[in-house]
Order: sequence, then C-alpha cells, then structure tokens
Amino acid sequence: MGDEPLATLLERLHELFLERGVTVATAESCTGGLVAKLLTDRSGSSAFFRGGVVAYANAVKTGLLDVPADQIEAHGAVSAQVARAMAVGVRSRMSADLAVAVTGVSGPTGGGAAKPLGLTYVAAADAAGVDVRRFMFAGDRAANRESAARAALELLAERLLDRSGDGSDQAG
Amino acid sequence: MGDEPLATLLERLHELFLERGVTVATAESCTGGLVAKLLTDRSGSSAFFRGGVVAYANAVKTGLLDVPADQIEAHGAVSAQVARAMAVGVRSRMSADLAVAVTGVSGPTGGGAAKPLGLTYVAAADAAGVDVRRFMFAGDRAANRESAARAALELLAERLLDRSGDGSDQAG
Repeated sequence: MGDEPLATLLERLHELFLERGVTVATAESCTGGLVAKLLTDRSGSSAFFRGGVVAYANAVKTGLLDVPADQIEAHGAVSAQVARAMAVGVRSRMSADLAVAVTGVSGPTGGGAAKPLGLTYVAAADAAGVDVRRFMFAGDRAANRESAARAALELLAERLLDRSGDGSDQAG
Repeated sequence: MGDEPLATLLERLHELFLERGVTVATAESCTGGLVAKLLTDRSGSSAFFRGGVVAYANAVKTGLLDVPADQIEAHGAVSAQVARAMAVGVRSRMSADLAVAVTGVSGPTGGGAAKPLGLTYVAAADAAGVDVRRFMFAGDRAANRESAARAALELLAERLLDRSGDGSDQAG
C-alpha cells in the first residue's frame, strides 16, 4: 500500500468516507495540520471531515483533547499512550465516527536515546476500539512529516475497509 | 508584501515570533490546517506555536472555539463576525498571545450570490484587539486555499511588527 501515490490514496479515502457515511476528526502533533490539510484537499470533504486539533503545546493536548496530564508525564508526549488518548479525545470532542492521531519526533532537534528522531505513533479510534502503530522514519523533517501523515491516512483507509457495513460499529 | 516568496515570509515570521517572544494559535476552516502546517514547517516552531483548531463542522466552531451559534445563524460561517469569534476563541482556549483565523468559500462548490466562491475572511486577535480583513480570491480550490493561508501569515507578520516591544500588549 506504501507504493500507492498520495493523490490516489486521498481519492480512495474520500470515496470510502462518502460510501460508508463515516465522519472523521484528526489530532496532530508533529504533522502540524498536514493530515487535516490533505483530508480537505478535495471539494466535498465537508461531508465527512468534522475538524481537527493541532496540539503542539502539552496544555493543548490536555485542555482540548482531554489527554491525561499524568500520561504525558509518565510516558512522554511521543508515546503510544498519548497517541491513543489524543485519538479518543478528538473523536469524543468532535462527535466523529472515526478519529486519527499522530505524535512523533520530526527533528532535526528534540530526539534522544529514549525518543529518537523519526519515532512516531499513529492511532485510530472508532466505536470498536483503538489501534496504535509505531514507526521509525529516517528522513529529514519534511520527509518524516509526510511519512507520518501518510501513515495516518493509510490507517484510516484500513479502518474504513474493516467496517463491513454490518453494524460492526457496535462491536467491542 | 505579496511578492515575497512564501519560504521567506515563513522564515521572517519564525524569527519575529522568537524575537518578540510571542506565542500563536490558529483557527481554520477553508484552509483545513494549511496555516498550522506552514507555521510548523521549520524546526524550533514549538517555541512559539501552541496549536490550532481546524473547524469544518459548525459544531466544532461552537464547541471548541466558542463561536456563538447565533452568530453563525445570523451571518453565516463565512463572515467577518465568525472570523473574529474564531480568532478570539482559539486565542483564549490555547492561552496564546496572538491568534489568527481563516474562514472562506474555497470552492468549487458552495458559493452563492451572497457568499461567492473565493470570499474569505482573515482575523487576527491579540490583547490589543482584533483585525478582520475581507478577500476575494479568484483561483481554483487549491490556489484559493494557498492565497487564504498566505493572507493569514501576512496578517500575523503585520501584527508582530506592530508590537513595538514597549508593552503595547497591555493596550486596550
């Protein structure tokens, strides 16, 4: 799927959202709004895109996305736990069916032994639960942001394809 | 100023934010996160960028940005009043010194006699008050979004240059 051109992925996503009647919200840290921007590139996206939060400051993660401050303290802003909480938080705040969250170290500064440059977590939440994935991107800042945004879009596409339209929305 | 390359404008803005010690937040509708994405393109932006809200659904404008529902009802989501309320709302929610908001009709659908395609309002709010500007962009969807994002960035640069560092932050 990583070979699919970005424009094709976006077109496919757009159609999937419309076909399934699913609304979406985004919560972004390292990608800085790029996921939301890509989801709204095409006309008609207001039918499924509710909105997004770009949460750079930790106070924005806690205040607007309801990420527990003790999770940021315990695990760091770039962690599976915080990615999960961001996705769950924005889904609830924006009353969306599906939500995606991205948090990572895009670089070139800010890395460290425990949280190396390129480390990125992507989470998707819907009524059935939350998926979190971990990535290590090896590009420069711009490339890492693009890779992270693409990973978020691909996770959304997978979750949409998993929704078989048989009421699995109510599962788990 | 419209002739300044985007990369130069972004570099200048980045330096201005750092020099003046001013934090910023964004509220976007038609630009879909592009303003936040551009403000965070450069490493080090976390020193001044607190975060942003992409508010496509009106419920997100009211719920996360405190835009009064009666203003949306009375003036429409693409209006000077709503742009102003979005800027004031995100500045308060994110405890930022300065905020910028964009709302417009990017097209190609959604226009009308009263709210033609390309109509865009950009607002900037700080402790001294709120500026709102009205634009009519004549490009396609992508070009209108880029023009709107650029107008937002230029308004931020102007507001930063107006802050003479003499404590005008406290002005009425």
